[in-house]
Amino acid sequence: MKENDCIFCKILKKEIPASVVYEDELVTAFMDVMPFTKGHLLVIPNEHGQLIGEIDEKTAGRMFEVGRKLNRAIRKSGIESEGVNFMMADGPAAGQEVFHSHLHCIPRNTGDGFGFKRPPGYGKMAERADLDLLAEEIKKNL
Amino acid sequence: MKENDCIFCKILKKEIPASVVYEDELVTAFMDVMPFTKGHLLVIPNEHGQLIGEIDEKTAGRMFEVGRKLNRAIRKSGIESEGVNFMMADGPAAGQEVFHSHLHCIPRNTGDGFGFKRPPGYGKMAERADLDLLAEEIKKNL
Repeated sequence: MKENDCIFCKILKKEIPASVVYEDELVTAFMDVMPFTKGHLLVIPNEHGQLIGEIDEKTAGRMFEVGRKLNRAIRKSGIESEGVNFMMADGPAAGQEVFHSHLHCIPRNTGDGFGFKRPPGYGKMAERADLDLLAEEIKKNL
Repeated sequence: MKENDCIFCKILKKEIPASVVYEDELVTAFMDVMPFTKGHLLVIPNEHGQLIGEIDEKTAGRMFEVGRKLNRAIRKSGIESEGVNFMMADGPAAGQEVFHSHLHCIPRNTGDGFGFKRPPGYGKMAERADLDLLAEEIKKNL
Protein backbone atom coordinates (compact mmCIF):
# COMPACT_ATOMS: atom_id res chain seq x y z
CA MET A 1 0.00 0.00 0.00
CA LYS A 2 1.34 3.40 -1.00
CA GLU A 3 -0.41 6.54 0.11
CA ASN A 4 -1.21 9.21 -2.44
CA ASP A 5 -0.37 12.21 -0.29
CA CYS A 6 2.87 10.79 1.20
CA ILE A 7 6.05 12.40 -0.11
CA PHE A 8 8.12 9.27 0.52
CA CYS A 9 5.58 7.12 -1.34
CA LYS A 10 5.91 9.56 -4.24
CA ILE A 11 9.68 9.02 -4.16
CA LEU A 12 9.13 5.24 -4.18
CA LYS A 13 6.77 5.59 -7.17
CA LYS A 14 9.41 7.83 -8.84
CA GLU A 15 6.89 10.64 -9.16
CA ILE A 16 9.38 13.03 -7.57
CA PRO A 17 13.18 12.88 -7.77
CA ALA A 18 15.48 11.46 -5.12
CA SER A 19 19.15 10.58 -5.01
CA VAL A 20 18.74 6.88 -4.31
CA VAL A 21 21.69 5.00 -2.85
CA TYR A 22 20.23 1.57 -2.17
CA GLU A 23 17.04 -0.38 -2.83
CA ASP A 24 15.91 -3.93 -2.24
CA GLU A 25 12.56 -5.70 -1.91
CA LEU A 26 11.91 -4.28 1.56
CA VAL A 27 13.63 -0.90 1.93
CA THR A 28 14.99 2.08 -0.03
CA ALA A 29 17.68 4.58 1.00
CA PHE A 30 18.24 8.06 -0.43
CA MET A 31 19.90 11.36 0.43
CA ASP A 32 17.92 13.66 2.76
CA VAL A 33 17.03 16.74 0.74
CA MET A 34 17.45 18.99 3.79
CA PRO A 35 20.52 17.43 5.38
CA PHE A 36 21.60 17.98 8.98
CA THR A 37 25.15 17.20 7.83
CA LYS A 38 26.82 16.25 4.55
CA GLY A 39 25.92 12.67 3.62
CA HIS A 40 22.67 12.57 5.66
CA LEU A 41 20.68 9.54 4.46
CA LEU A 42 17.20 8.17 5.07
CA VAL A 43 16.24 4.50 5.02
CA ILE A 44 12.52 3.85 4.54
CA PRO A 45 10.28 0.79 4.23
CA ASN A 46 8.87 0.27 0.73
CA GLU A 47 5.40 -0.22 2.20
CA HIS A 48 3.79 2.81 3.79
CA GLY A 49 3.45 2.87 7.57
CA GLN A 50 3.78 5.79 9.95
CA LEU A 51 5.10 4.07 13.05
CA ILE A 52 7.78 1.42 13.35
CA GLY A 53 5.28 -0.73 15.26
CA GLU A 54 3.18 -0.90 12.07
CA ILE A 55 6.16 -2.04 9.99
CA ASP A 56 6.76 -5.79 10.05
CA GLU A 57 9.67 -7.04 12.13
CA LYS A 58 11.77 -8.26 9.20
CA THR A 59 11.51 -4.92 7.38
CA ALA A 60 12.36 -3.02 10.58
CA GLY A 61 15.46 -5.17 11.04
CA ARG A 62 16.41 -4.64 7.39
CA MET A 63 16.17 -0.86 7.80
CA PHE A 64 18.87 -0.96 10.44
CA GLU A 65 20.98 -3.54 8.57
CA VAL A 66 20.98 -1.17 5.62
CA GLY A 67 21.76 1.82 7.86
CA ARG A 68 24.80 -0.12 9.08
CA LYS A 69 25.81 -0.95 5.48
CA LEU A 70 25.51 2.71 4.45
CA ASN A 71 27.54 3.79 7.46
CA ARG A 72 30.33 1.39 6.48
CA ALA A 73 30.19 2.74 2.92
CA ILE A 74 30.36 6.35 4.13
CA ARG A 75 33.36 5.54 6.32
CA LYS A 76 35.12 4.08 3.27
CA SER A 77 34.10 7.00 1.04
CA GLY A 78 35.54 10.47 0.71
CA ILE A 79 32.74 11.93 2.85
CA GLU A 80 34.09 13.19 6.16
CA SER A 81 32.55 11.13 8.95
CA GLU A 82 34.24 10.65 12.31
CA GLY A 83 31.02 9.13 13.63
CA VAL A 84 27.34 8.66 12.82
CA ASN A 85 24.01 9.10 14.56
CA PHE A 86 21.23 6.71 13.67
CA MET A 87 17.95 8.28 14.64
CA MET A 88 14.25 7.60 14.25
CA ALA A 89 11.47 9.90 15.36
CA ASP A 90 8.40 7.71 15.85
CA GLY A 91 5.33 9.88 16.30
CA PRO A 92 4.94 13.69 16.39
CA ALA A 93 5.83 13.86 20.10
CA ALA A 94 9.22 12.39 19.14
CA GLY A 95 9.73 14.93 16.36
CA GLN A 96 8.36 12.96 13.38
CA GLU A 97 7.57 15.34 10.53
CA VAL A 98 7.08 13.01 7.54
CA PHE A 99 4.56 10.33 8.41
CA HIS A 100 6.23 7.44 6.61
CA SER A 101 8.61 5.68 9.00
CA HIS A 102 12.27 6.58 8.32
CA LEU A 103 15.67 5.98 9.84
CA HIS A 104 18.10 8.89 9.69
CA CYS A 105 21.81 8.10 9.19
CA ILE A 106 23.65 11.31 10.02
CA PRO A 107 27.42 11.53 9.49
CA ARG A 108 29.01 13.37 12.40
CA ASN A 109 32.17 15.39 12.82
CA THR A 110 33.46 17.23 15.87
CA GLY A 111 31.90 20.67 16.09
CA ASP A 112 29.27 20.14 13.37
CA GLY A 113 26.53 21.59 15.58
CA PHE A 114 24.16 18.62 15.49
CA GLY A 115 23.36 17.02 18.81
CA PHE A 116 20.89 16.15 21.53
CA LYS A 117 19.10 18.31 24.06
CA ARG A 118 18.95 16.59 27.38
CA PRO A 119 15.83 17.16 29.49
CA PRO A 120 16.07 19.58 32.44
CA GLY A 121 17.20 17.70 35.55
CA TYR A 122 18.98 15.01 33.51
CA GLY A 123 21.95 13.33 35.14
CA LYS A 124 20.53 11.58 38.20
CA MET A 125 20.98 7.85 38.64
CA ALA A 126 17.60 6.13 38.81
CA GLU A 127 16.70 3.94 41.80
CA ARG A 128 17.15 0.25 41.06
CA ALA A 129 13.72 -0.56 42.56
CA ASP A 130 12.04 1.91 40.17
CA LEU A 131 13.90 0.50 37.17
CA ASP A 132 12.95 -3.05 38.18
CA LEU A 133 9.27 -2.03 38.34
CA LEU A 134 9.48 -0.44 34.87
CA ALA A 135 11.27 -3.52 33.51
CA GLU A 136 8.50 -5.77 34.88
CA GLU A 137 5.81 -3.54 33.37
CA ILE A 138 7.50 -3.69 29.94
CA LYS A 139 8.22 -7.44 30.15
CA LYS A 140 4.61 -8.33 30.82
CA ASN A 141 3.59 -6.49 27.63
CA LEU A 142 6.22 -8.12 25.39
CA MET B 1 34.61 -11.72 23.40
CA LYS B 2 33.72 -9.67 26.43
CA GLU B 3 36.01 -6.87 27.52
CA ASN B 4 37.05 -6.67 31.14
CA ASP B 5 36.79 -2.91 31.51
CA CYS B 6 33.47 -2.49 29.65
CA ILE B 7 30.49 -1.68 31.88
CA PHE B 8 28.01 -3.29 29.45
CA CYS B 9 30.09 -6.49 29.31
CA LYS B 10 29.98 -6.51 33.12
CA ILE B 11 26.18 -6.30 32.93
CA LEU B 12 26.16 -9.20 30.44
CA LYS B 13 28.38 -11.22 32.77
CA LYS B 14 26.00 -10.28 35.65
CA GLU B 15 28.91 -8.79 37.58
CA ILE B 16 26.90 -5.60 38.08
CA PRO B 17 23.12 -5.27 38.36
CA ALA B 18 20.78 -4.24 35.56
CA SER B 19 17.02 -4.28 35.11
CA VAL B 20 16.92 -6.63 32.14
CA VAL B 21 13.81 -6.64 29.98
CA TYR B 22 14.78 -8.95 27.14
CA GLU B 23 17.60 -11.32 26.20
CA ASP B 24 18.22 -13.73 23.37
CA GLU B 25 21.30 -15.33 21.77
CA LEU B 26 22.32 -12.09 20.04
CA VAL B 27 21.15 -9.08 22.07
CA THR B 28 20.15 -7.96 25.57
CA ALA B 29 17.92 -5.03 26.58
CA PHE B 30 17.80 -3.29 29.95
CA MET B 31 16.70 -0.03 31.55
CA ASP B 32 19.14 2.89 31.17
CA VAL B 33 20.36 3.73 34.69
CA MET B 34 20.47 7.45 33.85
CA PRO B 35 17.27 7.79 31.83
CA PHE B 36 16.50 10.71 29.52
CA THR B 37 12.80 9.92 30.08
CA LYS B 38 10.84 7.31 32.03
CA GLY B 39 11.13 3.92 30.35
CA HIS B 40 14.44 4.68 28.55
CA LEU B 41 15.89 1.36 27.38
CA LEU B 42 19.14 0.22 25.82
CA VAL B 43 19.55 -2.69 23.40
CA ILE B 44 23.09 -4.03 23.13
CA PRO B 45 24.83 -6.84 21.25
CA ASN B 46 25.95 -9.72 23.48
CA GLU B 47 29.37 -9.64 21.83
CA HIS B 48 31.51 -6.61 22.51
CA GLY B 49 32.05 -4.12 19.70
CA GLN B 50 32.33 -0.37 19.83
CA LEU B 51 30.93 0.59 16.44
CA ILE B 52 27.91 -0.79 14.63
CA GLY B 53 30.16 -1.50 11.64
CA GLU B 54 32.04 -4.02 13.82
CA ILE B 55 28.81 -5.80 14.81
CA ASP B 56 27.66 -8.45 12.35
CA GLU B 57 24.70 -7.59 10.14
CA LYS B 58 22.29 -10.09 11.68
CA THR B 59 22.94 -8.83 15.20
CA ALA B 60 22.56 -5.20 14.07
CA GLY B 61 19.20 -6.05 12.51
CA ARG B 62 18.14 -7.90 15.65
CA MET B 63 18.98 -4.84 17.79
CA PHE B 64 16.43 -2.79 15.90
CA GLU B 65 13.86 -5.62 15.74
CA VAL B 66 14.06 -5.79 19.52
CA GLY B 67 13.85 -1.99 19.82
CA ARG B 68 10.62 -2.16 17.80
CA LYS B 69 9.32 -4.98 20.03
CA LEU B 70 10.10 -3.00 23.19
CA ASN B 71 8.43 0.08 21.74
CA ARG B 72 5.27 -1.94 21.06
CA ALA B 73 5.39 -3.28 24.63
CA ILE B 74 5.83 0.21 26.08
CA ARG B 75 2.87 1.49 24.07
CA LYS B 76 0.73 -1.32 25.53
CA SER B 77 2.08 -0.77 29.06
CA GLY B 78 1.14 1.82 31.66
CA ILE B 79 4.25 3.90 30.82
CA GLU B 80 3.28 7.19 29.22
CA SER B 81 4.65 7.25 25.68
CA GLU B 82 3.12 9.33 22.91
CA GLY B 83 6.14 8.59 20.74
CA VAL B 84 9.64 7.16 20.85
CA ASN B 85 13.09 8.13 19.64
CA PHE B 86 15.43 5.38 18.60
CA MET B 87 18.97 6.67 18.69
CA MET B 88 22.48 5.36 18.35
CA ALA B 89 25.66 7.38 18.85
CA ASP B 90 28.37 5.62 16.88
CA GLY B 91 31.75 7.07 17.78
CA PRO B 92 32.71 9.87 20.18
CA ALA B 93 32.06 12.57 17.53
CA ALA B 94 28.44 11.35 17.49
CA GLY B 95 28.16 11.49 21.30
CA GLN B 96 29.06 7.88 22.16
CA GLU B 97 30.04 7.68 25.83
CA VAL B 98 29.99 3.92 26.53
CA PHE B 99 32.15 2.13 23.99
CA HIS B 100 29.97 -0.95 23.55
CA SER B 101 27.47 -0.34 20.74
CA HIS B 102 23.97 0.42 22.05
CA LEU B 103 20.61 1.48 20.69
CA HIS B 104 18.63 3.93 22.85
CA CYS B 105 14.84 3.56 22.92
CA ILE B 106 13.54 6.75 24.49
CA PRO B 107 9.81 7.12 25.24
CA ARG B 108 8.67 10.63 24.34
CA ASN B 109 5.87 12.87 25.52
CA THR B 110 5.06 16.42 24.48
CA GLY B 111 7.11 18.90 26.49
CA ASP B 112 9.47 16.33 28.03
CA GLY B 113 12.53 18.44 27.16
CA PHE B 114 14.43 15.83 25.17
CA GLY B 115 15.16 16.70 21.56
CA PHE B 116 17.63 17.47 18.82
CA LYS B 117 19.87 20.44 18.22
CA ARG B 118 19.94 21.34 14.55
CA PRO B 119 23.22 22.67 13.18
CA PRO B 120 23.53 26.42 12.54
CA GLY B 121 22.28 27.24 9.03
CA TYR B 122 20.03 24.16 8.90
CA GLY B 123 16.92 24.41 6.73
CA LYS B 124 18.26 24.90 3.21
CA MET B 125 17.26 22.48 0.46
CA ALA B 126 20.37 20.83 -0.98
CA GLU B 127 21.09 21.01 -4.71
CA ARG B 128 20.05 17.83 -6.53
CA ALA B 129 23.39 17.69 -8.38
CA ASP B 130 25.29 17.74 -5.07
CA LEU B 131 23.07 15.01 -3.63
CA ASP B 132 23.54 12.89 -6.75
CA LEU B 133 27.32 13.18 -6.40
CA LEU B 134 27.16 12.15 -2.74
CA ALA B 135 24.87 9.24 -3.63
CA GLU B 136 27.35 8.05 -6.28
CA GLU B 137 30.23 8.32 -3.83
CA ILE B 138 28.35 6.22 -1.25
CA LYS B 139 27.10 3.67 -3.80
CA LYS B 140 30.57 2.90 -5.11
CA ASN B 141 31.66 2.06 -1.54
CA LEU B 142 28.71 -0.22 -0.77
